[in-house]
Amino acid sequence: MVKVGVVGGTGYTGIELLRLLFAHPDVCVDVVCSRSEAGQHLTQVYPSFSGIQSQHTDVAALVFVEPDAQALSSCELVFFATPNGVAMNYARELLEKGIKVIDLAADFRFKDLELWKSWYQMEHACPDLLAEAVYGLPEMNRELIKDARLVGSAGCYTSAAQLSMMPLLNSDDVDWQHVIVDAKSGVSGAGRALKVTSLFSEAGENFSAYGVSGHRHQPEISHCLHQYSGKQLGLTFVPHLVPMVRGIFSDTYLRLKTPMDLDTLQSRFENFYQDEAFVDVMAAKSLPDTKSVRASNLCRIALHLPNPDTLIVLAVIDNLVKGASGQAVQNMNLMLGLDETAGLGIIPVYP
Amino acid sequence: MVKVGVVGGTGYTGIELLRLLFAHPDVCVDVVCSRSEAGQHLTQVYPSFSGIQSQHTDVAALVFVEPDAQALSSCELVFFATPNGVAMNYARELLEKGIKVIDLAADFRFKDLELWKSWYQMEHACPDLLAEAVYGLPEMNRELIKDARLVGSAGCYTSAAQLSMMPLLNSDDVDWQHVIVDAKSGVSGAGRALKVTSLFSEAGENFSAYGVSGHRHQPEISHCLHQYSGKQLGLTFVPHLVPMVRGIFSDTYLRLKTPMDLDTLQSRFENFYQDEAFVDVMAAKSLPDTKSVRASNLCRIALHLPNPDTLIVLAVIDNLVKGASGQAVQNMNLMLGLDETAGLGIIPVYP
Amino acid sequence: MVKVGVVGGTGYTGIELLRLLFAHPDVCVDVVCSRSEAGQHLTQVYPSFSGIQSQHTDVAALVFVEPDAQALSSCELVFFATPNGVAMNYARELLEKGIKVIDLAADFRFKDLELWKSWYQMEHACPDLLAEAVYGLPEMNRELIKDARLVGSAGCYTSAAQLSMMPLLNSDDVDWQHVIVDAKSGVSGAGRALKVTSLFSEAGENFSAYGVSGHRHQPEISHCLHQYSGKQLGLTFVPHLVPMVRGIFSDTYLRLKTPMDLDTLQSRFENFYQDEAFVDVMAAKSLPDTKSVRASNLCRIALHLPNPDTLIVLAVIDNLVKGASGQAVQNMNLMLGLDETAGLGIIPVYP
Amino acid sequence: MVKVGVVGGTGYTGIELLRLLFAHPDVCVDVVCSRSEAGQHLTQVYPSFSGIQSQHTDVAALVFVEPDAQALSSCELVFFATPNGVAMNYARELLEKGIKVIDLAADFRFKDLELWKSWYQMEHACPDLLAEAVYGLPEMNRELIKDARLVGSAGCYTSAAQLSMMPLLNSDDVDWQHVIVDAKSGVSGAGRALKVTSLFSEAGENFSAYGVSGHRHQPEISHCLHQYSGKQLGLTFVPHLVPMVRGIFSDTYLRLKTPMDLDTLQSRFENFYQDEAFVDVMAAKSLPDTKSVRASNLCRIALHLPNPDTLIVLAVIDNLVKGASGQAVQNMNLMLGLDETAGLGIIPVYP
Repeated sequence: MVKVGVVGGTGYTGIELLRLLFAHPDVCVDVVCSRSEAGQHLTQVYPSFSGIQSQHTDVAALVFVEPDAQALSSCELVFFATPNGVAMNYARELLEKGIKVIDLAADFRFKDLELWKSWYQMEHACPDLLAEAVYGLPEMNRELIKDARLVGSAGCYTSAAQLSMMPLLNSDDVDWQHVIVDAKSGVSGAGRALKVTSLFSEAGENFSAYGVSGHRHQPEISHCLHQYSGKQLGLTFVPHLVPMVRGIFSDTYLRLKTPMDLDTLQSRFENFYQDEAFVDVMAAKSLPDTKSVRASNLCRIALHLPNPDTLIVLAVIDNLVKGASGQAVQNMNLMLGLDETAGLGIIPVYP
Repeated sequence: MVKVGVVGGTGYTGIELLRLLFAHPDVCVDVVCSRSEAGQHLTQVYPSFSGIQSQHTDVAALVFVEPDAQALSSCELVFFATPNGVAMNYARELLEKGIKVIDLAADFRFKDLELWKSWYQMEHACPDLLAEAVYGLPEMNRELIKDARLVGSAGCYTSAAQLSMMPLLNSDDVDWQHVIVDAKSGVSGAGRALKVTSLFSEAGENFSAYGVSGHRHQPEISHCLHQYSGKQLGLTFVPHLVPMVRGIFSDTYLRLKTPMDLDTLQSRFENFYQDEAFVDVMAAKSLPDTKSVRASNLCRIALHLPNPDTLIVLAVIDNLVKGASGQAVQNMNLMLGLDETAGLGIIPVYP
Repeated sequence: MVKVGVVGGTGYTGIELLRLLFAHPDVCVDVVCSRSEAGQHLTQVYPSFSGIQSQHTDVAALVFVEPDAQALSSCELVFFATPNGVAMNYARELLEKGIKVIDLAADFRFKDLELWKSWYQMEHACPDLLAEAVYGLPEMNRELIKDARLVGSAGCYTSAAQLSMMPLLNSDDVDWQHVIVDAKSGVSGAGRALKVTSLFSEAGENFSAYGVSGHRHQPEISHCLHQYSGKQLGLTFVPHLVPMVRGIFSDTYLRLKTPMDLDTLQSRFENFYQDEAFVDVMAAKSLPDTKSVRASNLCRIALHLPNPDTLIVLAVIDNLVKGASGQAVQNMNLMLGLDETAGLGIIPVYP
Repeated sequence: MVKVGVVGGTGYTGIELLRLLFAHPDVCVDVVCSRSEAGQHLTQVYPSFSGIQSQHTDVAALVFVEPDAQALSSCELVFFATPNGVAMNYARELLEKGIKVIDLAADFRFKDLELWKSWYQMEHACPDLLAEAVYGLPEMNRELIKDARLVGSAGCYTSAAQLSMMPLLNSDDVDWQHVIVDAKSGVSGAGRALKVTSLFSEAGENFSAYGVSGHRHQPEISHCLHQYSGKQLGLTFVPHLVPMVRGIFSDTYLRLKTPMDLDTLQSRFENFYQDEAFVDVMAAKSLPDTKSVRASNLCRIALHLPNPDTLIVLAVIDNLVKGASGQAVQNMNLMLGLDETAGLGIIPVYP
């Protein structure tokens, strides 16, 4: 039984992480940190945890403490479910104490410091750690993650988009210079921060685009796929806000330089993901929906080839699970030598 | 053609007021005031007004100015679509200039200063005006409103609840000491303020109660009904938040001291409201829904008598129209001697 | 490891039952029956189960068969997640084979045959079994359920309402002749049947009442509380439809004949439910919301006493879990001698 | 004042048409037809019309009659808000009586009979009328519509997509062989028919694609643009279902064969639509949302050029207004020689 800590347990990825960790067979949540809620019981801040039983954690006794490396020293691994720019201030000290670190934000997702700085508009607190840090998408970097001390867990849009392209990245039949990803996210993707656009009366009964002229997940998709495959992507990425709480739906449009048949493409995807527990390659021409993965760690993918030279890859995930906290737990399982699927066998909640 | 001003045109009741006033046949919106948006074009702040034609107002030219009696001096009447405690600071000066005032908040709804102070926790800037001010529910105070210079327009929950009880208030067959109002509101009722409970991810796919131990509309319902009828109500009022943008649904439970039949009760309601343009007494045992009044100034009411001594009055309104801005325009029409229904013939938007 | 069968696995309570049973540590789903889907793989009908791992069930291999006692003979216990009037046609034959039966519909909830017939408008196929059948609300009938062969699992509205009143039923300080339950349900409560009122464009952005002049859960609430306590209730019950998928919120208004203080009432509830795993009595004056129990088997209850003689009991459940399938699993655990909480430790999915 | 008739007044486009026509300054709705509701008052079928005042129509007196050319003979123009394949059975007889016809379905949108038959899988009742019929998108065919007796009013997805491309169609700088339209619609677009996928519990909190391998609006977009411009489009069209009632959001991705700057493109759009009352070309890089056009006849368009060779055209409409019934009224205004904007000055309902 492994002790872990969670910094930033009051945002949506934090609370989702706790939901998963409390039900994990091998883990005890020993410390929860929150600057804003320090001193409060978890169950006061999130009444949905009231009355909950956990195998290894005394949920009712959990009290938020100030984030601090000392407070976290009992832990074997610490998650940062914090905004960009927080984890980097704690990572070195924790690593030096022999504590592994998983950041759910973007501090450790980029190898290219200048690229990171240009998109996140701050100085990096520990640029030297970027070389060591592993991008936390298990289907891409499983072996590296197993050996990692420091993981930048993959983001929501990026996970869906990267899983949609990975099986074809070694192919030159795709026009990688002109990839279009039209992606749609539930409102929880914007977090619990107070923004007018996140209000029910604004986001409800509404559909909008945002970040069309530049969204941080665009360089993340391109950069990490480049790291992985050597392919340089020309990517048009358009995110949209859907009036639902959870879920990401991603349409990736790939132009085929050489016409291919759907069976061949389907086989490539099936073969590529045949041993993956969390990627479900649906029958060709299937129509996935976000509800079919809700609250679970699954990514479902379906291929369509309406014209011989245009492949459409549809992918759905729960942005808070496979797009954030489930992914982080999957990374943790690998880093701690546990069964990769431990605690992640959640069946989608439908309807 | 009458010039009017709107102070606080950036909240939901403000923007709804503008929607109604731009389409009004007899009114020009001459001034819009907002402290936070001063200097901005209306169409920048609310793109939904971009490209809109109004008979009397040049919408594209409207620019927010600082709220100020001088700036409003061209107006014959000024609306305050502002938080509680704002209108009272401007009312006297405007009235002295001969400008009529309608407050959509609670500054001028109470005759009882101490009651107001106990619920609103502030000093009143012009307590002497309370005697003159008229409570702006036209179905209750039509003649007074016609002669008023200063109107405190009725609130959303209160309008639905009061219209549900008014036809029976002269009856002693009801146990007025034990009235229960179980009311439900769409999230726009909480306004555009940034509150965690108003976030889509919190209010969506959720239903909650609030203010159970005390909500400001409770004394407003009781007090204004008492002013109107002399009856002292014992009222239990429970408001709830519904995951929809617009609409109020109100269930009023009245204990009958003497059993009555539904036909008699139904007749009383039909007779009471027979000349009212905006109150639709549905056939007995009908089942109203909020969608059937959406975007309109209608209140629909239906009676049920499941047990001989328990009358249920169901009422639906659009909280932003008959519960706020439509009501205010109806009051304005009366105050200015216009046709009471002018500009309010909006057909519900269904579905 | 116990083999169970599910008849009617294609409605919402059926699919929810399967979600819970697949994750149950002691149960294998051996047979799923559906007349309309016979011959189809479960994962074809409900793609949300595709790729799911279950400890004891081979989910991918499950194929719907025609409902038939023979087909179910391998099972130790059979659930009927079917419309009213179905389970009664199979119960006798299954019981004779030594197979226990849990009906999620109303066939076995009533002891009073005539009452049942008057509300369900059909003949009962096995009226003699009504005496033996146990009403399946564990917090009410735990010991009887342990010994039962045949259980009529409690309904959604009824569970919330009954749990709201049970701790006070032995009191004569409440005016039991005038109980008001104003209840609100998510749309999944109407099932997967094709009805205009269940369409997204009708139920979305809308709030409505239904069954005001008579809903089947009204006699169920009264009858079963009477069986339990001997108290005859005078009950006004008004159900409403909320634009959300899951959740029930119930407001019970109780008139106190003798004024009582909130602390006393709170203590009674806390004492009454102190050993219950699934009933969370919140601190007095708390404000529960349906999201805080979503996907879980919890019922949260909060008391308010805004006037000395009016007690309000607020209760929230997930209608598909504690209001249907979770309740059924809880009953199963008792009937099979398993840990009552086995497979039901689901943490609410929030947000 | 012109008498018009509406066939099929019980679906969502029918009821929306009535909402617009009742408020129209020059029109009286003389006849409403519905096979399923014949004999019923309109206000019984749609209580949202109860208590509504119309300048020229006695709404309370409207009773549905069987659809029949004789019953419609008092009308100058008849709308068909019916499924595909209905209007074609009445059109000839009505035209022969001198009655103009507008079909909101697809019977008269195609010039190419074989193309129509291949997508709609039926024989056409009056193929000879296809040559005369005019495609009813006023911004495309204004002069033709003015002279038409028979109009096939443009569909929802198609209007948004065609308005997104029309200003550039005379350009050879776009790779018209590889156009991608990723479109999203509210659930009312599926009509009021009883389908599992239209249920609240399925469509709510969900996002899905449909018709990826072929949707009827794809040939409509291509065919009518070809008629208009001579350009043959290679079109990939993917429609999606959004958990909201109203609204279409369309992303059109155009590959530029010659890199262009955004200002040039923006000017082309602004010039092209400068005299259009219902097309609002927003400032470059704006982010439209569907709520900003809700209940109105507006189409808002915004251009983005994130990469020098990829133009994104975002467009929003209300699918029931500019995508159906508002469009039909705009066509009617043109056909009857009325002001094109008469009755269509509805301000968007926001929030």
